[in-house]
Amino acid sequence: MDAEDTLLMIPGPVKVAPRVLRAMSRPMISHRSAEFGKIYDDCRSLLQEFFQTQNEIVIMSGSGTCGMDAAVGGVIGKDGAILTISNGKFGDRFTEIGNRYGKAVPVSFDWGTPYDPERIEAAVFEGCRAVTMVHNETSVGMVNPAREIGKIARKSNSVFIVDGISSIGGNEFLTDEWGIDIAVTGSQKCLAVPPGLAIVSVSKKAESALVPNSGGFYTDLLAHLKSARKSPTQTPFTPAVPLFYALQEALHMAKEEGFDVRRARTTRLAESVRAAARALNIELFPVQSRYSQYSNTVTAMKIPQGITDDKLRGGMKKQGIVVSGGQEALKGKIFRIGTMGVCSEGDILRTIQTLELILTREGVIERPGAGVEAAGKVLLG
Amino acid sequence: MDAEDTLLMIPGPVKVAPRVLRAMSRPMISHRSAEFGKIYDDCRSLLQEFFQTQNEIVIMSGSGTCGMDAAVGGVIGKDGAILTISNGKFGDRFTEIGNRYGKAVPVSFDWGTPYDPERIEAAVFEGCRAVTMVHNETSVGMVNPAREIGKIARKSNSVFIVDGISSIGGNEFLTDEWGIDIAVTGSQKCLAVPPGLAIVSVSKKAESALVPNSGGFYTDLLAHLKSARKSPTQTPFTPAVPLFYALQEALHMAKEEGFDVRRARTTRLAESVRAAARALNIELFPVQSRYSQYSNTVTAMKIPQGITDDKLRGGMKKQGIVVSGGQEALKGKIFRIGTMGVCSEGDILRTIQTLELILTREGVIERPGAGVEAAGKVLLG
Repeated sequence: MDAEDTLLMIPGPVKVAPRVLRAMSRPMISHRSAEFGKIYDDCRSLLQEFFQTQNEIVIMSGSGTCGMDAAVGGVIGKDGAILTISNGKFGDRFTEIGNRYGKAVPVSFDWGTPYDPERIEAAVFEGCRAVTMVHNETSVGMVNPAREIGKIARKSNSVFIVDGISSIGGNEFLTDEWGIDIAVTGSQKCLAVPPGLAIVSVSKKAESALVPNSGGFYTDLLAHLKSARKSPTQTPFTPAVPLFYALQEALHMAKEEGFDVRRARTTRLAESVRAAARALNIELFPVQSRYSQYSNTVTAMKIPQGITDDKLRGGMKKQGIVVSGGQEALKGKIFRIGTMGVCSEGDILRTIQTLELILTREGVIERPGAGVEAAGKVLLG
Repeated sequence: MDAEDTLLMIPGPVKVAPRVLRAMSRPMISHRSAEFGKIYDDCRSLLQEFFQTQNEIVIMSGSGTCGMDAAVGGVIGKDGAILTISNGKFGDRFTEIGNRYGKAVPVSFDWGTPYDPERIEAAVFEGCRAVTMVHNETSVGMVNPAREIGKIARKSNSVFIVDGISSIGGNEFLTDEWGIDIAVTGSQKCLAVPPGLAIVSVSKKAESALVPNSGGFYTDLLAHLKSARKSPTQTPFTPAVPLFYALQEALHMAKEEGFDVRRARTTRLAESVRAAARALNIELFPVQSRYSQYSNTVTAMKIPQGITDDKLRGGMKKQGIVVSGGQEALKGKIFRIGTMGVCSEGDILRTIQTLELILTREGVIERPGAGVEAAGKVLLG
């Protein structure tokens, strides 16, 4: 495999635009300089619009999990308790983080099955410091109902923490309207920046709930807020400078396209993948209900009868297209195609064409064409 | 300031070679792929040589502090206690981290004054889980005696944790010979990679002392070790892929030069800066003793009488050369010049020349020349 001749269609890291890669390769600057402060400020201000929030934004050098850790660790205090809702891998991760510092009370649903708000509401307990959920569960390609859960969190006066890592900028995500106190995203998803930055929005309510010296040292949200208010704007520890260059460029690129336009485009791309799947009799994985939607950033499909994961994804990789498999218990059972960031219509069609060729060769379908035709119809509107 | 027309002479982030910047801007790959695993493996194996160790290496996506956090957080357990030695900002940081998760018992010396091993030995207590020290205290330009402290740590059967962030690859640093159980470096120092990676070596003794679910979630050292032993080699959370590209290229570049040759070159560059300082009657900051050495990676000097920090560093910056000031109580009192990584003889001479011009203009010295002459003598050997 040659990365420069490969189409990366996984749900993160995603393809990065050449102009972003070039911006990233500028020489280093001091991270305590006015120059760095200006870049950070510019990113923070564009990110507020990207998050649809008035809340303050901090950027941490680490993966999305670094941001999830910061949120839970900051709020939970010494031995506090939080409610963690899960129907996939990343929901479970909040439970692990909660149990690291205090106690997580999980409300778990089978991976890929919708939340039941009644069960969640019944599980809220006295002294619950936070309610956590994953908006777009990357592991199963499903969007969970943040608006509804936000109401439950508000009633119990808990801090509402939402993992928006593979969601913000791709799915509808209304940080302020839904009352999200801490929202987290990662650079390598809808922003189409390389991985390595966690972006966290913090409401005033969340800030006043942050417990000093709670959680991890490196992931201290109060320290990040304090440094971000210095002049010049800073991070508490040396930041990954090139990723800030890349983030700034990618934000300007997305802003030029229009954040709404990009979201609408991402939606259309995902719809075209779903249309192709239906045309090829490939079953979509997530169970649908009033409280779930198909993700617009990652489409999870069952691996069809008559072909193995290895043959499907391995065959595509030989043709220079990388798609994802299932995680943990879903390994070998599903495959996933990302549609975030700067993914193009041509990228989608090439991916579906190649999938069709492989399915035809393995005798799963009779001939190629139906998937591309269905996808094309959606793209043409 | 234009970063592309500026000479960065601070003690990290340091100047990055163009070939490393280019390697960094390659397209993304999946972080769970065999391709990523190969890059990680290659880095780990070269880093063992770089650290002069047989211990296992893990690479974390975060700053050097992320690695310090991982070391202390992993060893301290719930409410354990550690001994933290400090004579500068980064020594103090270990105390802060220790107090975050358990108890730090600090042995503190004034910033820039040498350790007193007797006082340290007397402070070791029953049940001390770790002894921490900073080898090269970046904040004061001083090297502390790791060999001696290692003996004290071994006697008390504590895990010996050494911050080698601005040291490894520039100063002599014998991880195994000195019995360092956990050594930490950062990508943006002697490796001349952009900031954003913490590199941690872990001895068998340290690994068996790691307490499950201790410390921060994101900085979990056991999780990093476990993932690094998977096939393909992985990280527990999405890594900063471009920084791994850069690290691999920079390691090969340093290996081509020879790790020893680079260390010797770094030493000579620092000696030339110290010679220039003496010739210009600029006082070196660190107090010398049997238990301290001048750093070869960063030279800390007192700001001469007759000029302010602003005029000195501000004046140099106007000429396109960035040097560092003092931190915390040393702000306005010292300035610091880095000599790590791919810094060249020409970079040093240009820096000293510009310093001389500014000192002459401000009337601190009569005429320029003596500094460059003294530095040149050292460089010519």
